[in-house]
Amino acid sequence: MISIYMSILAGFVGLLAALILARKVITQPAGNNEVTDIGKLIQEGAMAFLKKEYMILSIFVVAIFVILTVLIDFNLLGNDKIDQLSSGGRVSLNGPWTAIAYLFGALGSGLAGFIGMNIAVRGNTRTATAAQKGLNQALRVAFNSGAVMGMTVVGIGIIGVSTLWLIFQNPTVIAGFGFGASSIALFARVGGGIYTKAADVGADLVGKVEAGLPEDDPRNPAVIADNVGDNVGDVAGMGADLFESYAGSIIATISLAFAAGVMFDVSAPKAILPLAIAGIGIISSILGTFLIRTSDNADMGKLLWTLRYGIFGAGILSLIGTGIYVQYNNLDFNLFWVVLTGIVVGQVIGTATEIFTSYEGLKIGSWNFNPVEWIAKQSQTGHSSTIIAGISVGFYSTAIPAIAIVCAIYIANELAGLYGIGLAAVGMLSTLGITLATDAYGPVADNAGGIAEQAHLEPEVRQRTDALDALGNTTAATGKGFAIGSAVLTALALLAAFGAVTGVTQLDLLKPKVLIGTILGALLPFIFSGLTMQAVGTAAGSMIEEVRRQFREIPGLREGKPGVKPDAAKAVAISTAGSLKAMIAPGLISILAPIVVGVILGAEALGGLLAGSIVAGFLLAIFMANAGGAWDNAKKYIELGHFGGKGSDTHSAAVTGDTVGDPFKDTSGPSLNILLKLMAIVSLIFGPLFIGSGLL
Amino acid sequence: MISIYMSILAGFVGLLAALILARKVITQPAGNNEVTDIGKLIQEGAMAFLKKEYMILSIFVVAIFVILTVLIDFNLLGNDKIDQLSSGGRVSLNGPWTAIAYLFGALGSGLAGFIGMNIAVRGNTRTATAAQKGLNQALRVAFNSGAVMGMTVVGIGIIGVSTLWLIFQNPTVIAGFGFGASSIALFARVGGGIYTKAADVGADLVGKVEAGLPEDDPRNPAVIADNVGDNVGDVAGMGADLFESYAGSIIATISLAFAAGVMFDVSAPKAILPLAIAGIGIISSILGTFLIRTSDNADMGKLLWTLRYGIFGAGILSLIGTGIYVQYNNLDFNLFWVVLTGIVVGQVIGTATEIFTSYEGLKIGSWNFNPVEWIAKQSQTGHSSTIIAGISVGFYSTAIPAIAIVCAIYIANELAGLYGIGLAAVGMLSTLGITLATDAYGPVADNAGGIAEQAHLEPEVRQRTDALDALGNTTAATGKGFAIGSAVLTALALLAAFGAVTGVTQLDLLKPKVLIGTILGALLPFIFSGLTMQAVGTAAGSMIEEVRRQFREIPGLREGKPGVKPDAAKAVAISTAGSLKAMIAPGLISILAPIVVGVILGAEALGGLLAGSIVAGFLLAIFMANAGGAWDNAKKYIELGHFGGKGSDTHSAAVTGDTVGDPFKDTSGPSLNILLKLMAIVSLIFGPLFIGSGLL
Repeated sequence: MISIYMSILAGFVGLLAALILARKVITQPAGNNEVTDIGKLIQEGAMAFLKKEYMILSIFVVAIFVILTVLIDFNLLGNDKIDQLSSGGRVSLNGPWTAIAYLFGALGSGLAGFIGMNIAVRGNTRTATAAQKGLNQALRVAFNSGAVMGMTVVGIGIIGVSTLWLIFQNPTVIAGFGFGASSIALFARVGGGIYTKAADVGADLVGKVEAGLPEDDPRNPAVIADNVGDNVGDVAGMGADLFESYAGSIIATISLAFAAGVMFDVSAPKAILPLAIAGIGIISSILGTFLIRTSDNADMGKLLWTLRYGIFGAGILSLIGTGIYVQYNNLDFNLFWVVLTGIVVGQVIGTATEIFTSYEGLKIGSWNFNPVEWIAKQSQTGHSSTIIAGISVGFYSTAIPAIAIVCAIYIANELAGLYGIGLAAVGMLSTLGITLATDAYGPVADNAGGIAEQAHLEPEVRQRTDALDALGNTTAATGKGFAIGSAVLTALALLAAFGAVTGVTQLDLLKPKVLIGTILGALLPFIFSGLTMQAVGTAAGSMIEEVRRQFREIPGLREGKPGVKPDAAKAVAISTAGSLKAMIAPGLISILAPIVVGVILGAEALGGLLAGSIVAGFLLAIFMANAGGAWDNAKKYIELGHFGGKGSDTHSAAVTGDTVGDPFKDTSGPSLNILLKLMAIVSLIFGPLFIGSGLL
Repeated sequence: MISIYMSILAGFVGLLAALILARKVITQPAGNNEVTDIGKLIQEGAMAFLKKEYMILSIFVVAIFVILTVLIDFNLLGNDKIDQLSSGGRVSLNGPWTAIAYLFGALGSGLAGFIGMNIAVRGNTRTATAAQKGLNQALRVAFNSGAVMGMTVVGIGIIGVSTLWLIFQNPTVIAGFGFGASSIALFARVGGGIYTKAADVGADLVGKVEAGLPEDDPRNPAVIADNVGDNVGDVAGMGADLFESYAGSIIATISLAFAAGVMFDVSAPKAILPLAIAGIGIISSILGTFLIRTSDNADMGKLLWTLRYGIFGAGILSLIGTGIYVQYNNLDFNLFWVVLTGIVVGQVIGTATEIFTSYEGLKIGSWNFNPVEWIAKQSQTGHSSTIIAGISVGFYSTAIPAIAIVCAIYIANELAGLYGIGLAAVGMLSTLGITLATDAYGPVADNAGGIAEQAHLEPEVRQRTDALDALGNTTAATGKGFAIGSAVLTALALLAAFGAVTGVTQLDLLKPKVLIGTILGALLPFIFSGLTMQAVGTAAGSMIEEVRRQFREIPGLREGKPGVKPDAAKAVAISTAGSLKAMIAPGLISILAPIVVGVILGAEALGGLLAGSIVAGFLLAIFMANAGGAWDNAKKYIELGHFGGKGSDTHSAAVTGDTVGDPFKDTSGPSLNILLKLMAIVSLIFGPLFIGSGLL
């Protein structure tokens, strides 16, 4: 029990670290008037979006709250299994506790996104200003902004789960917390993802391609919306997303600890282990940030390595801590190897992502496997060649991650059964505090560059922020590996827990109902991706028309006549309305699909649905993320002067690839990770209602 | 037993019909010198490709022949199960009969492709010449060319399977026949598919886009290669493909009849039923072709309906025949309903394909769901918008086919168990003789148009062939629906047969090994598609460079100086070499993957591999086929004058979509159907060797 208190304490230490880092960021000089004016516009746009988004979501949250209270907490259908589950915890559930846990999960997710974005919109102007002094100073500010979000996410996450576990020790209650986190994360990722890419695509296509303006030119009416998008999509969306991953992996593992062992053994050390690992990870992450120290004249390579030292150091510390904990508590030492497996596999997926999306590819002696360069080369023969090349790279880039995950499943299961699969995910995410920092600082640097451009700061400022942005793309690859890998393992752990809760002890693919469920489950990521891609296309279309209209109707705008400004607010409003409307359908599908299948076809088919969605969603997510990343860097590679450089036809083809890749990698791809887990957690909570064979 | 003789007889009637139709085509006037010269070039190029392809494949066939003889027929590993399977038939297998059946399957597949292509390369010049007289005359010649292939495929298919069954009555032997057909089909589809799209993309990108030449302009060095490609990919490849589908569905159902019922009951009526249905289908198809009669002044709408009457009539006749057969032989009448389900579901998938890929979409009252028009509209905002739109349409177009298949599985299983799933596929394909005719005549009409252009025939000739080509695209949609639907059902039936043969009575997704198999299985279609897309990209790149070189180095070529001709042979050689080299890797992966997984992880994981590949491959295949079809028609829709028409920026964006769609719909997509079945049949034959848990 002492471990839980320690974990909660670690969570508060994390929040304290976030506070200190936030102070460090905010006390930096915000910059000149032009910079702060632009910063204010971005801040207002972002907050307006978040406010509207949360208002829509609050209706949804209330509805789910009522449903959970009625069907689960007060069990109005009189389901035996739910009765049994709710009375088995430390505190007998005679109140709406699952519903309240759900509320806390939703609030935690929203809060993580809100705080992360709040600091990011302040961090970006300060990064731009710091970049006037030097690369290293800018890195510090941007990294600290990212670290605030990282520490906030893990802090709130572990405090939430640990406290609920301490009070109730009931898997259904903490599953409610996970449900809240997942559902908000899905909407935030989808809504924010559509917003940012609609604005980005709109700004790029009309501004850069048609009007011939440079990136982030202040005359472009969609530029502010694009900057806002970076914050609501890449920062707030990502924060909600990773909060969900973090809490989800812990919750899945705790659920499995009970499913696998004696039901509701309150002192079960296997249930406390994931909380302990997470607590150790937070402290390790904080220590890791101290390793990130560079001299003032550090070059890019050195900067990259200092970030890696930080991540690597945190990982080592976390492993040592876990080893000591396992040994000290007389747990099976195999559990330590499982955690190590999780970390290694996350690293392998991250490295594979890097190989498929970086300029360097993979060099072994004179042999060089370089997909990004190949895409750039293919771009010489036109737009369609770029697309064909990127799609083919995306497709076969799924191989290494899939094989790595398969190895993780095999090893974890051999060492610790299905419980090991969840634990590997917890291990993978244990140092999220620091890996998320390296992930989240990218958009801050990106935004800082945009602000520098619009505020007409010296060209070297933009060069420095671009360098930081490129660095962020590389470190983000590792983050993506961990996010995707942990999502699959978490979802599988939830699937196993679902099986245990519903008494579905096997999911036999030779049974037509299971097979049908699996086909439908695999279908969902396709439909989901189709809807989100369509939403980006439609919203970007409206944005393009608006930008064209402004260039047509505002005299002097295109020519850059002094004093003439675009109507940025209108563009922001279009992105906001379009994305909020479009996030509803995919969000509802994810929650309703498992319920509909459960009611009509029963629990076994529902299990098939989960398995199908996990397998297909995992592969589609990697395909989209890597194709998008490879296109992005192929374009940047050409911009470095290869194959004709900027302004050539080759470059124009590469821009097409990058634009297609935008919704791939920042909207549809990352949302799929959440889709899998959300469906699994919905099934875990409502599963007992579907025991039996359904209506058919 | 009488039914088998009748089926063989029906097969010969089919071949006779093919012969009569072939005579009808060949006795048509071949056209003027220019036409016949071009026809000869195409014929030579196509034959040269086929010769080289078959030479490479013969090495492969010999290798497999030896492996089958050693491991299966003479059972050198002393596997008990194989002993039992081989001694259970009517004729005890003391000779290399599975290997010989394999050889026959391979030969049958090759022969179907060869004959189909032989008639097609003659049909295209004659169609061009007939189009000088009128639309109806041209339709007849093109349709008859297609019908020759249709009747050949079903004739050889049923004669092969029925004869082998009559002699051996052993499921392993006929599975050998299916293996031969599938392996050749895979190579032919992949090789031909890469060839045709490399040439097509190359011809389009340099000729149309860069040099500004019209489609099929004789100055374009890649045009002959493009025409050759239509024949080797869309005709020979498709022939081999559907031969495999046809034989595969029958074989799968027979295997299941034994797996489900008493093993090796020689008089089992359920084993003979699929042969009988196929025989009835051949006769119905022949009668259906008589329904295709039009007046000389028929318009497009009438032509479409006359084709539909033919298909529809054949379907009705086939159903009536099946009903009588089932009733007369005192079989469970539910089997009739299963066949009906198969036909209806094939029709539903075909209709869905049409909705997602036709100009009209779906109109209900004033409500109009029109994805093609949406893609065309999105093309107004540039290349990337076209791509995003097409991909999103492709993604969610998977919904209706997946739900239709799920319904087919449910109904077939409820009515007749797993056997019903195979029987539904047999029903779906029973009238292949006529549906393949409407599918295969498209490329003939397409080629005729190319020849008309190059031989400078009157413009109305081209207009007529274009009209026929467009008509072909519509009827081909139905054909695709049947091909994809039957592939999934056949593969599932083979999976069930695999389970019965290996004694794997359940495939429990909660067992890590099965789950691992499923993930790896789902991975394969992604890798496979990645490799085939990359092959098209690479081969098209070489083609583009060659075309550019010729325009640069052959003086007067671009300007069309009289007497100056491009070096078409060089372009043909490039496509041939590129595609043959590139077909090896994907082909070997499909055959080796099940064996490697079987050896290392055992039979249960192999079952998971099959299930994963079926589910993911099915959805990816539909995604690619429909996205490709929708892009193609969005381009044509714009060419009709919408959104700026030909030559506009919108059109240029739509051309990019169409070019990306080419390898989607004609290379990667259709090959996936074969991949699923090939892996399943490899597993069915070699499965007994993997009984147990594998090395791990």
